[in-house]
Amino acid sequence: MPDDLRERIVEVAEKTGFIPNVFLALAHRPQEARAFFAYHDTLMDKATPALSKADREMIVVATSAANGCLYCVVAHGAVLRIRSKNPLLADQVATDWRKADLDDRQRAICDISVRFARQPETVTIADWDGLKEHGLDDDDIWDVGAIVGVFGLSNRMAHLTNMRPNEEFYSMGR
Amino acid sequence: MPDDLRERIVEVAEKTGFIPNVFLALAHRPQEARAFFAYHDTLMDKATPALSKADREMIVVATSAANGCLYCVVAHGAVLRIRSKNPLLADQVATDWRKADLDDRQRAICDISVRFARQPETVTIADWDGLKEHGLDDDDIWDVGAIVGVFGLSNRMAHLTNMRPNEEFYSMGR
Amino acid sequence: MPDDLRERIVEVAEKTGFIPNVFLALAHRPQEARAFFAYHDTLMDKATPALSKADREMIVVATSAANGCLYCVVAHGAVLRIRSKNPLLADQVATDWRKADLDDRQRAICDISVRFARQPETVTIADWDGLKEHGLDDDDIWDVGAIVGVFGLSNRMAHLTNMRPNEEFYSMGR
Amino acid sequence: MPDDLRERIVEVAEKTGFIPNVFLALAHRPQEARAFFAYHDTLMDKATPALSKADREMIVVATSAANGCLYCVVAHGAVLRIRSKNPLLADQVATDWRKADLDDRQRAICDISVRFARQPETVTIADWDGLKEHGLDDDDIWDVGAIVGVFGLSNRMAHLTNMRPNEEFYSMGR
Amino acid sequence: MPDDLRERIVEVAEKTGFIPNVFLALAHRPQEARAFFAYHDTLMDKATPALSKADREMIVVATSAANGCLYCVVAHGAVLRIRSKNPLLADQVATDWRKADLDDRQRAICDISVRFARQPETVTIADWDGLKEHGLDDDDIWDVGAIVGVFGLSNRMAHLTNMRPNEEFYSMGR
Amino acid sequence: MPDDLRERIVEVAEKTGFIPNVFLALAHRPQEARAFFAYHDTLMDKATPALSKADREMIVVATSAANGCLYCVVAHGAVLRIRSKNPLLADQVATDWRKADLDDRQRAICDISVRFARQPETVTIADWDGLKEHGLDDDDIWDVGAIVGVFGLSNRMAHLTNMRPNEEFYSMGR
Repeated sequence: MPDDLRERIVEVAEKTGFIPNVFLALAHRPQEARAFFAYHDTLMDKATPALSKADREMIVVATSAANGCLYCVVAHGAVLRIRSKNPLLADQVATDWRKADLDDRQRAICDISVRFARQPETVTIADWDGLKEHGLDDDDIWDVGAIVGVFGLSNRMAHLTNMRPNEEFYSMGR
Repeated sequence: MPDDLRERIVEVAEKTGFIPNVFLALAHRPQEARAFFAYHDTLMDKATPALSKADREMIVVATSAANGCLYCVVAHGAVLRIRSKNPLLADQVATDWRKADLDDRQRAICDISVRFARQPETVTIADWDGLKEHGLDDDDIWDVGAIVGVFGLSNRMAHLTNMRPNEEFYSMGR
Repeated sequence: MPDDLRERIVEVAEKTGFIPNVFLALAHRPQEARAFFAYHDTLMDKATPALSKADREMIVVATSAANGCLYCVVAHGAVLRIRSKNPLLADQVATDWRKADLDDRQRAICDISVRFARQPETVTIADWDGLKEHGLDDDDIWDVGAIVGVFGLSNRMAHLTNMRPNEEFYSMGR
Repeated sequence: MPDDLRERIVEVAEKTGFIPNVFLALAHRPQEARAFFAYHDTLMDKATPALSKADREMIVVATSAANGCLYCVVAHGAVLRIRSKNPLLADQVATDWRKADLDDRQRAICDISVRFARQPETVTIADWDGLKEHGLDDDDIWDVGAIVGVFGLSNRMAHLTNMRPNEEFYSMGR
Repeated sequence: MPDDLRERIVEVAEKTGFIPNVFLALAHRPQEARAFFAYHDTLMDKATPALSKADREMIVVATSAANGCLYCVVAHGAVLRIRSKNPLLADQVATDWRKADLDDRQRAICDISVRFARQPETVTIADWDGLKEHGLDDDDIWDVGAIVGVFGLSNRMAHLTNMRPNEEFYSMGR
Repeated sequence: MPDDLRERIVEVAEKTGFIPNVFLALAHRPQEARAFFAYHDTLMDKATPALSKADREMIVVATSAANGCLYCVVAHGAVLRIRSKNPLLADQVATDWRKADLDDRQRAICDISVRFARQPETVTIADWDGLKEHGLDDDDIWDVGAIVGVFGLSNRMAHLTNMRPNEEFYSMGR
């Protein structure tokens, strides 16, 4: 394994106490792994007034559930519990975002995100502009669309490689 | 509240330590509540060599997830963790039964159950007979179909009444 | 067959002149049969100003058609013809409720009922509240949702047991 | 109305005792009406060993039901009852061809016809060739596909013009 | 081949420089071919203020793409390029009419046409009336619906006969 | 614009004679752009015995068409024409890969790719292994899945930014 990936894994392992399986699964292809982590970091380690880190994880959980992705629902469900400081939210969003404890802004984000994940051709520029009523600006809207796209890729890599969530993720943050 | 429903609730509360919200939601209509609990008990408090109590809960979790039912996924997910003695299985089945830790028999049951839950007209008698290769007899097959049907009703009552899972269920059996 | 079921069957046979096949199919499991008939009677043998007995049968026919259920479309189609005193309505509702001879209230009920039958997760509390514009109160709305749920179960039992409508139903009330 | 259409209508009215509404609806556009009737006659007034006139009506009823076409289900349902000499078959095929009283050949024809009506791009030449196992030759297969296509057009004209079946059709042949 | 069809083919071949394959494919059944060409000519060789010949080809391309019909997308795509004097429009409409260079009237026509092509039962008279806001009258609306219907038939005949577009069509009008 | 992106754009512009719009659209976010191009290069500028560069473009065209992505269908359609030396193939694959001039290996690749693009949860490890019968090895299968995933992301970025294909792409390679 190339040094840069090894270092990243060591760093994550020290922080979370275990090596998330996604690192091992993707490390098989170092260049793709680097591209994926670059995407991940630039979109997820970021917060704006209208799109917190927890909101970003909410998008990942809602769309990964729509795509039936076990790894992402369980691993990012754990991160959502931690970032939202709400131990129940991830299971709610994964099962039915419409009835989860979300506010109108979050509900509008989930609505367009899940539709964009499953039927992207039906989402128009006018639909995206609707998010501006909830305080999102053009960069936030780009983030929402890009997160759906990047995790749509991630969901597919997890399905393709039969990626399994580490046991630790199932109970983290509950 | 009629005495028989009150007694049942007291009994459940003593056993589990809290009153599951389904009892309060359904008690608004005592006759329907009695019919639902009668269905529940006769189908779920039962085990046959080819269809254990855990298998029955697996059917409930898989089809309730397909129907987006928060209450049933969370509450019966807890029961599935306990009955299967597997703290991870419920989240797996709820997210993607195809990639859950199931054997061939269980996978065949989930496959037909989820299809029967969402597009019942496509499931034929010949499809049901396919479960016999996995050791199910005619009564087991009736149970599978009836569990899908009864929890399809339950899922709809939960959607209709905005039924929320008790907080306790989210972490039970983990 | 237990006495209570036998008595019910005798009573129905005397009233309608034949034994509807649903009784024979369900009698195989007396406890489930009792629960089903209890549900049926409490929801269907009832009329409110905003939801007549004919309206209730209309819901059964529209959703059973969506679920492709031969028994329920034919048997409840007969009851709908009789209760609505309209020999054409059942065939219209079964084929395309949008173009059937219905008023706005009935059309709104069919719309939400068929969607609730097929994609229950998409129907929100706000959607249900829309029925109040047509005069339905909270109890009527519960009835609509519960009828869809109970006959969704009935449709599945009919598919599962290959239940055939009695020949008499096809021409009753025409 | 041009003389040729008027003559045809008179002829039909004398034979059936009433003027089917399709003639009045389509006569608004004589050239299109002539083309439709030409298609109809060449495909429907024909019988081969593997595709009787009743079979052709069965295709119309099954696919018109899939397209939710009230006029065609009711009017061709009447013709199917008469041609099959089976007063129950039309309601069965319209509700769920899978559970109708059909033989394997008829079931295979309904299966491919309904799929061709709703998702034509998924039906391949290899699928069509599967009908040869049931005795259909190349001309019969053309007939099946063309009937689905022509009545798909007819279903759409009925939806577009809000065409209503004459009351007589509902009870004819029962 | 009957003389009238042969004459038509000669005439087309002289005009376009080659014999479009649809003529050879359909000539196998002269009566059906005549009916199809009659439909085609009366609906497509016509222009009204609100529905130009190019608009009519746009409907054919959008709905044929939805039906996955190679022959019609390629052949009528060529005609659309020529009639609209826009070499890019056909590829845009075939891939995603929502993002094609269309005005509001054209977009509204594509929207209802594609839905009518794929799920005709969901399009109501009220939906059709919505086109009047864009200047279409009752006869134009009939044309839109009939074009969708006739080319739905044409799409199915092309799928059924594995009809291939002539190579010339791919580059015509670019 | 950062120098590395500017250099890449200059290089592409010199090679193809124009600046493909994707570079301008994505350059707004340099880090995401770099990640995307890294993915693109490692997956697309590569050929194995069982998966040529043309095959890789075929996957992009088939899945981008399924996702209704104008930019990718037109731009990668041009590349497919060039790499396959077949001026007709791109339009065929975009409209209906089932009837395109493909061999069995290519058809199997398109089949699983389009399903993986639209309903990834239904594709199992056993489905992927089926590609081995056509000579693909584990790395080829990873490539197929990753190309579908990366271009699913690309399709969504194109929808999100209303990305338009350069006019040059429409006619390149015809």
